[in-house]
Amino acid sequence: MDNFVYYAPTKFVFGRYTEKRIGELAKEFGGTRALVVYGGGSAVRSGAVGRAVRSLHAAGFDTFNLEGIQPNPADDRVREGIELVRMHDIDIIIAVGGGSVIDTAKAIALGALYDGDFWDFYCGKATPERALPVGVVLTIPAAGSEGSGNSVITLREVRNEDGEVVSGPVKLSLRTESVLRPKFAIMNPELTLTLPAWQTACGIVDMMAHIFERYFSNTPDCEVTDRVAEGLLKAIVCEGRRVMESPDDYQARANIMWAATLAHNGICGTGRREDWSSHFIEHEISAVYPDVAHGAGLAAVIPAWMEYVAAKNPGKVAQFAERVMDVVPAPGSVPVDIALEGIARLRSFFLNIGMPSDFAGLGVIDPDIPALVEALHMHKGESIGNYVPLTARDTKAIYMALM
Amino acid sequence: MDNFVYYAPTKFVFGRYTEKRIGELAKEFGGTRALVVYGGGSAVRSGAVGRAVRSLHAAGFDTFNLEGIQPNPADDRVREGIELVRMHDIDIIIAVGGGSVIDTAKAIALGALYDGDFWDFYCGKATPERALPVGVVLTIPAAGSEGSGNSVITLREVRNEDGEVVSGPVKLSLRTESVLRPKFAIMNPELTLTLPAWQTACGIVDMMAHIFERYFSNTPDCEVTDRVAEGLLKAIVCEGRRVMESPDDYQARANIMWAATLAHNGICGTGRREDWSSHFIEHEISAVYPDVAHGAGLAAVIPAWMEYVAAKNPGKVAQFAERVMDVVPAPGSVPVDIALEGIARLRSFFLNIGMPSDFAGLGVIDPDIPALVEALHMHKGESIGNYVPLTARDTKAIYMALM
Repeated sequence: MDNFVYYAPTKFVFGRYTEKRIGELAKEFGGTRALVVYGGGSAVRSGAVGRAVRSLHAAGFDTFNLEGIQPNPADDRVREGIELVRMHDIDIIIAVGGGSVIDTAKAIALGALYDGDFWDFYCGKATPERALPVGVVLTIPAAGSEGSGNSVITLREVRNEDGEVVSGPVKLSLRTESVLRPKFAIMNPELTLTLPAWQTACGIVDMMAHIFERYFSNTPDCEVTDRVAEGLLKAIVCEGRRVMESPDDYQARANIMWAATLAHNGICGTGRREDWSSHFIEHEISAVYPDVAHGAGLAAVIPAWMEYVAAKNPGKVAQFAERVMDVVPAPGSVPVDIALEGIARLRSFFLNIGMPSDFAGLGVIDPDIPALVEALHMHKGESIGNYVPLTARDTKAIYMALM
Repeated sequence: MDNFVYYAPTKFVFGRYTEKRIGELAKEFGGTRALVVYGGGSAVRSGAVGRAVRSLHAAGFDTFNLEGIQPNPADDRVREGIELVRMHDIDIIIAVGGGSVIDTAKAIALGALYDGDFWDFYCGKATPERALPVGVVLTIPAAGSEGSGNSVITLREVRNEDGEVVSGPVKLSLRTESVLRPKFAIMNPELTLTLPAWQTACGIVDMMAHIFERYFSNTPDCEVTDRVAEGLLKAIVCEGRRVMESPDDYQARANIMWAATLAHNGICGTGRREDWSSHFIEHEISAVYPDVAHGAGLAAVIPAWMEYVAAKNPGKVAQFAERVMDVVPAPGSVPVDIALEGIARLRSFFLNIGMPSDFAGLGVIDPDIPALVEALHMHKGESIGNYVPLTARDTKAIYMALM
């Protein structure tokens, strides 16, 4: 175990009817003017946005709206939100939605208190120190952004100092210890009962990925963190199967929702070096092909990444296979055999919940792999990850495995 | 899963050398005057108290001391601390020690801002709403008080309104959502390397008990919370064996230390009704026989409680047996058989780490069981617990099983 700081001061209010409490919770942070950020579609139809706004009004808030946030959220809506905050002197930002909405709200909360361009934080030119308070009404369990200090935003066009476009979209992740953690998150599983199967499955993969990226680590002696991560993974596989079979099962939805938060609030990473290679590899795909859902992209990438690294460093993958996928080693089997059997079971689980396993399944017919590899290493450096460090030669092989 | 609120805003600073950061961390809460609470003995000899005080001085604090806090901490030292806080206009309380020291610091932090007697909070006459900030330098992993909103204090003598003593000692637990959670906890496993085997083992039992009391629940559909709890228990058994064999193994100490925090910060109880019967049954023993260490008392009580309830409601005990103690059900075996085999393995684990299994092992030669039963139900009501509700007849049988 390495030294670490763990600080997760989000208040989670979990269960039925809880979204009615948003006004009361927001009130604790003072202020009278709230910006409500949402996507539209299901968050509006389910009544979640309406109930949140009514609760805020009842608590004495004036509310302003930023609607229509799309998956793989982009910088233009963040800039629009920052303008709204400044124009209306907003005190608190309320995100009603899933990861894209919450990540946009976080970027606005940060950018609104900063004189320069908010993208400075994402590309590492500035360090986040303060942000407006963010509250969440969660409607999609997947990203874990309701409990994390992270935010992922796509910059549509990279420009040089003269304002000329020099590259296509770049999707970057910002990670803070606590500045970007929501102050509170209201989590009513009922709001997720009508999520389509596809979106539910994408969420299941995304939350598992958040654990994998912390679990596959060379830092030794992390038995406590390992066992928590493995326990969560087992619970997600079990409740994931259940929710796909019975989409209107409140209890399965509740378990999946809470698992998604714990998967990404940092508890599965305590004391060790993490490895976010699969996320990085996927981010390039969904940045260039924005119709690719992040979770679906991960469903294809993760088993391919695992197979590639298991050939070089099978230990932790074999542990995953035994402890999570219930692989019982055959007599005389070596770790790589155990690892591969675990990966096969994982891939089969992803397929069973309707997730793709390659570019074709993602709807990407003729991917430009050299361009993906080049963009990946331009954004993330010559070598990515550390469980097995990957250069362009390695990441090309992983992308090729998805053909 | 039931509705729940989970709010755990303690900042954990974990690892080597971290106690030097206490001044800097305390400074974040403003103020210039700190009361340092500790037990003496090992916390002083190890240099932990000295380093904390030097760090506080370097950060500009004046420090005042309350030393010599004993196990099973009592009300008299709390009152002394409250007087010190008022006399010296203290801004923050720093606990350097384990559960007894931290619980005393919490009681002082609460009582110092309250006009009446601090015991009002423990006996339910008053509701905690505010407290001075408490910071912790942890030296004993066991109680989990560094991350919990709880505090357990013993009132030496219960008096009536005329000031006459009407009963002997009573040990009561106060639980808050967040008022009593420490603001920060510094956790350097090096400070625990010299803990005696007995104290280490008592801590292992105590942290497991904190999980059991949340795990044995009739609330259905808590797969996520169950799997986290089971993972932690497996890690504690593994690292507990390791630390008893190699007391100076930093990594084993680190795992045990972090497990103790997660065992009691509430994560293992999310979404379900808990059952603190074993703690209640033990508290009566260590209140009347103060030489009984809490963890040792629990090592005797827990398997006896488990056997008693397994006969009436074996389901969850059998699940524990299979998932934590690796019991493989024999063909045709019924849940109670599986449960009993799991309990046998747990008892054997406790014995192997040097823990007692009965009153004699606890050094209580001629226990007054009727008095224990009477006191228990006087303090906790006619029926305690809910996994299997226990009346005086049941708790008498459990105490008798320790003869």
